[in-house]
Amino acid sequence: MMQVFSEALVEENYKMSDAIRDIEKAFSHLEDIQQAPRTVIPTGEGAKAMLYMPCVDLKQQLGTVKITSITPDNPKSGKPTTQAQIVISNLKNGEHEAIIDGSYLTRLRTGALSGIASKYMSKPDARILGMIGTGGMAYEQFLGNLEVRPIDKVILYNRTTKKAESFKQRILKAYPNLEVTVTDDVVELVKKSDIINCQTPSNEPVFNAEDIQPGTHINGIGSYQPSMKEIDYKIFPKADWVVVDDLEGVKEESGELIKANENGTFTFEEIDDELKTLSINNQKRENEDAITVFKCVGAAYFDLAVAVGAYQKLND
Amino acid sequence: MMQVFSEALVEENYKMSDAIRDIEKAFSHLEDIQQAPRTVIPTGEGAKAMLYMPCVDLKQQLGTVKITSITPDNPKSGKPTTQAQIVISNLKNGEHEAIIDGSYLTRLRTGALSGIASKYMSKPDARILGMIGTGGMAYEQFLGNLEVRPIDKVILYNRTTKKAESFKQRILKAYPNLEVTVTDDVVELVKKSDIINCQTPSNEPVFNAEDIQPGTHINGIGSYQPSMKEIDYKIFPKADWVVVDDLEGVKEESGELIKANENGTFTFEEIDDELKTLSINNQKRENEDAITVFKCVGAAYFDLAVAVGAYQKLND
Repeated sequence: MMQVFSEALVEENYKMSDAIRDIEKAFSHLEDIQQAPRTVIPTGEGAKAMLYMPCVDLKQQLGTVKITSITPDNPKSGKPTTQAQIVISNLKNGEHEAIIDGSYLTRLRTGALSGIASKYMSKPDARILGMIGTGGMAYEQFLGNLEVRPIDKVILYNRTTKKAESFKQRILKAYPNLEVTVTDDVVELVKKSDIINCQTPSNEPVFNAEDIQPGTHINGIGSYQPSMKEIDYKIFPKADWVVVDDLEGVKEESGELIKANENGTFTFEEIDDELKTLSINNQKRENEDAITVFKCVGAAYFDLAVAVGAYQKLND
Repeated sequence: MMQVFSEALVEENYKMSDAIRDIEKAFSHLEDIQQAPRTVIPTGEGAKAMLYMPCVDLKQQLGTVKITSITPDNPKSGKPTTQAQIVISNLKNGEHEAIIDGSYLTRLRTGALSGIASKYMSKPDARILGMIGTGGMAYEQFLGNLEVRPIDKVILYNRTTKKAESFKQRILKAYPNLEVTVTDDVVELVKKSDIINCQTPSNEPVFNAEDIQPGTHINGIGSYQPSMKEIDYKIFPKADWVVVDDLEGVKEESGELIKANENGTFTFEEIDDELKTLSINNQKRENEDAITVFKCVGAAYFDLAVAVGAYQKLND
């Protein structure tokens, strides 16, 4: 009997701390997890497409496939651009057991990846989080950082300031003790923040590498196509530690790193680590003044980790 | 809100005549249908695997992905080897609307393909159907032929005769006026039948090409891996008309045609038509004595045709 789990039900029962734990658990037995290349079928103009990301976990004997629609015109009618569902199959007996809304889980796992990166890479006492972009992915990015660092101040920048203001209200409703400010001055945000978290679809850098202060950690999760370059790629050679979530994915999808690799500013070979290595080896930043960068594009096995985790928790 | 349709519900509401009509309708606008290559992830010994077959119909603005598990050990515990689910997505707004059991639909569309082949390729007055193999796919193969030809006699052969006997009872329960016999003599079956329908996973030919009589039409749907060769490949050069469901698929998956192509008995270039051409052009057998062969391996767009058809009928 196929179980159906709505976005609201998953959101109520499966939290950021669960996602961080389950992704780090997956890192510890990646040899059992097999993912196939993503399939993309264009379905219209521009980025309009259907995406299919299958993955299996031979240890837990469960398989998942995330089915994602990209509908760029949707925001005009108040609907989300990206909508996902994840089907869970039991590999022991071949039964397809559940279909789970994947939209919240995608936002959550992406927030968890930034959280894991900040946990190993940012200063332990990081307390000021600067967020560039307050769109659909931003809230879970905020939660991921909040989970791992003693954040007490959040600075928000968004191209449309009004959206940053309502995002501020959303944060304050859940966390009234935080200090949250909206700024239209990115330079100020960059200079003051211990962690800068970028989540925009921008084709141009959203900050200037020269403004980055010693001791800053940067998470970039917005660019997922070669045309997108929210991170100023001049930061890569300047950084002490450059980590990515998935090396193969980044080479295909991270506009900043593709550009830096092309023009020789910073080649793919110069990327220091994949996130899993930090988690497996408990590898942390070595000095207070280091500049560190985490670039994230996503991969099917992160979806598997949270979908299986949520599925198991919902059936407990 | 995700709709869930069980196998029983689909089977009750969506029939062979529906499937034949909807697949022929799909043939008429194939330019709007895009399928991606199938993804296969092995999950254990032998054929154990997960398969993913995505497809979109830009005219109807619907997408499907069939998720299939192959669990070769399942029959030992009374479970089916193959289990499938199909997710339906609306391309207009990106919403994932339904998940439909795909096991019956897979059997049905395969039966419908044989039915369409028999409709155009077999003698119009074909009345004796010989079936080689009475396993999981057989009943809908029977139904497909029954739908398009005045079948009044069915001859059954199966390696395990007992299974053929219970298959006979299944047919007679639904169609008590048919004459149904079980034989252990394949040569007799082959010589008497107007249509021979093969549905076995055999690695060896299940009949001898020399025994095939003028005027016979053969449907072969069993072989879907290079190792499988239920059809005696010597029949291909002898046949007047060789048709396949999907040329690209056949080159990858039909053991008989791969073997015949390799040893030069009958090359892929000698295949006369794809099934769609017969349907689009209403192209029929030209003379009573022709020997005709249809080889079928399946493709995502057939699954799309029946899944969308069933979905629409269930929502009427």
